[in-house]
Amino acid sequence: MRDALLIIDVINDLEFDGGEKVLPWARRMAGPLSRFRDRARRHGIPIIYVNDNFGHWTSNFEDVFRHCTRAGARGRAISRRMKPGRGDYFILKPRHSAFYCTSLVPLLEDLGVHRLILSGIATNLCVLFTAHDAHMSDYRTVALSDCCAAESDLDHNTALDQLKRFCGTKVCRAGEFWSNARPRKAGTGKR
Amino acid sequence: MRDALLIIDVINDLEFDGGEKVLPWARRMAGPLSRFRDRARRHGIPIIYVNDNFGHWTSNFEDVFRHCTRAGARGRAISRRMKPGRGDYFILKPRHSAFYCTSLVPLLEDLGVHRLILSGIATNLCVLFTAHDAHMSDYRTVALSDCCAAESDLDHNTALDQLKRFCGTKVCRAGEFWSNARPRKAGTGKR
Amino acid sequence: MRDALLIIDVINDLEFDGGEKVLPWARRMAGPLSRFRDRARRHGIPIIYVNDNFGHWTSNFEDVFRHCTRAGARGRAISRRMKPGRGDYFILKPRHSAFYCTSLVPLLEDLGVHRLILSGIATNLCVLFTAHDAHMSDYRTVALSDCCAAESDLDHNTALDQLKRFCGTKVCRAGEFWSNARPRKAGTGKR
Amino acid sequence: MRDALLIIDVINDLEFDGGEKVLPWARRMAGPLSRFRDRARRHGIPIIYVNDNFGHWTSNFEDVFRHCTRAGARGRAISRRMKPGRGDYFILKPRHSAFYCTSLVPLLEDLGVHRLILSGIATNLCVLFTAHDAHMSDYRTVALSDCCAAESDLDHNTALDQLKRFCGTKVCRAGEFWSNARPRKAGTGKR
Repeated sequence: MRDALLIIDVINDLEFDGGEKVLPWARRMAGPLSRFRDRARRHGIPIIYVNDNFGHWTSNFEDVFRHCTRAGARGRAISRRMKPGRGDYFILKPRHSAFYCTSLVPLLEDLGVHRLILSGIATNLCVLFTAHDAHMSDYRTVALSDCCAAESDLDHNTALDQLKRFCGTKVCRAGEFWSNARPRKAGTGKR
Repeated sequence: MRDALLIIDVINDLEFDGGEKVLPWARRMAGPLSRFRDRARRHGIPIIYVNDNFGHWTSNFEDVFRHCTRAGARGRAISRRMKPGRGDYFILKPRHSAFYCTSLVPLLEDLGVHRLILSGIATNLCVLFTAHDAHMSDYRTVALSDCCAAESDLDHNTALDQLKRFCGTKVCRAGEFWSNARPRKAGTGKR
Repeated sequence: MRDALLIIDVINDLEFDGGEKVLPWARRMAGPLSRFRDRARRHGIPIIYVNDNFGHWTSNFEDVFRHCTRAGARGRAISRRMKPGRGDYFILKPRHSAFYCTSLVPLLEDLGVHRLILSGIATNLCVLFTAHDAHMSDYRTVALSDCCAAESDLDHNTALDQLKRFCGTKVCRAGEFWSNARPRKAGTGKR
Repeated sequence: MRDALLIIDVINDLEFDGGEKVLPWARRMAGPLSRFRDRARRHGIPIIYVNDNFGHWTSNFEDVFRHCTRAGARGRAISRRMKPGRGDYFILKPRHSAFYCTSLVPLLEDLGVHRLILSGIATNLCVLFTAHDAHMSDYRTVALSDCCAAESDLDHNTALDQLKRFCGTKVCRAGEFWSNARPRKAGTGKR
């Protein structure tokens, strides 16, 4: 079973209502997430940034990155730190879910991916609804609890609890993933 | 009723099987299509390029444009001539239809568009299947016969005939559009 | 703006894990919901049952109804009480969301509906995810708090709170709908 | 690789414009198709009827069957002859393509199907557009030429030719399928 790491809305100006509450959690998330991403790259796990288009309909990552790292933007430092690397994939999404009106599914099929490792902002919004859509489309999911951020502990924990109960999501910390969640060898799977 | 102009797969290296047959038709198409596009811009009609991603999953128009205008590419001159302008929209599609796994629908809803003016390559492939998906989603369609190109007259005409018969598509030449197909004044409603 | 009433998974054997906890809330829901449905019918509001197919892939409502009202099924009495009437629509869904792989959208377009009144089981699962998909597709939503049921107060309230915060859902009791949420006169449509 | 047989719009009153032209071809199709279906059943190949809902939004096969076999309907005899059997699946579709707003994909995933054997009415409309959607979703396709019907030889042949050229569809007669198109042993699937 092949994994992909989804990094959701981490290139983000955080200038939405409640963004100021997400900011400290997003800062805390950036360390574990960037380390996890680097290790995933070394393991050959595809890294897929799925990101709000912030109203830029021109399918152009540079425009979005520039927008989110503009002087004064709340999310500037985190967006810079989380900048995608050369081999990473970047998909712009027009709504909350990474599956809605995007090329995520054809990309996953091209890559032969059957399980999604979920991370990003916000646990109870884009991560939650992406995980749910993944579940409806029969993808298996793992959520990295310390690589997701939300406005509050309650929002964060409630969402992860929903994912465990209703979407069969395995929830673990980034460090635990490598010891526990990673299957020993490639399985067969269909989706 | 608001229109949008869809320009399908015109940024194209034409290096597929049969591309050499499409080339002369694409050259003939470039004149009327670029004139139509310019006039549409002046009328405030949104211009939406919907383009194959050529395997570039990074949501980056520049990569696609560079790829299609590389030295020696069959479609180089046409791709350059048809280069999108600043206010134009650009959507990358992973498959034939402009509707499949793309953000076209949310963009059309944002723009308040209810009718699509179809142009591009190839009449009997991406234009045909896009028009059909538009029809299933209740968009009205106009196909500009001299702004579409295919491998042969037969392919081109058969596809336009199918669109007329089964998808309610109005087929006309670019010049006729302004005199006939354009409604006198803005209508109401949506879809 | 035209409304439709969505009644989600109310034809239900409640024989899933946690169904025993939902049962008392579902019983409490049945009164207000059946009264609301009857009044909606008198107002000409289309009633759309969107229901789990319980593994019956034969697109046959009778099979599903028979399954859910079999002797001994936990949800028998409620399913019987909520039996659809002659003019009601019935859509079988294969997953949680009423929008996923169903004909809901074409039906709503046929009916000219732009706002969904949400009710059913469970508030934090099929109602929540349906409301979210409705929001992504630009439908407006109202959730009737006393016409939804979940395993617990916490689940129920958390879900309604999410809908208010992230999906622009108006939450009210069935009785309040007629006095407050109902627009005085027909609007001009959305999308 | 597991197959499924798609029987498209064969439960049909044929009372559309051009239906009188389809009728003789549909009659000719009924023999080979019913024999193929029976043999497929014996081989354990799932039979999936995907059928226009004829405006019946109540997810009820009986309503559709009754409608299409009403006294005087052009397609009465063929619809009766092609009546689904007990173990067959039946999916109502609201538009031309079997994939559009239906539960076909989740059903195929439940069944583990990766290749679709296509048959039905009309070759150049619902069969063509279903095959194209199957192709975009990475299903392999086989079209049975003598189990499809259209208004004319030209329509029929042009559509099958398009499928061969653009969708990788294997086209063969029903009899040839068993000798040639059927893989010797179960493969390992895609997706």
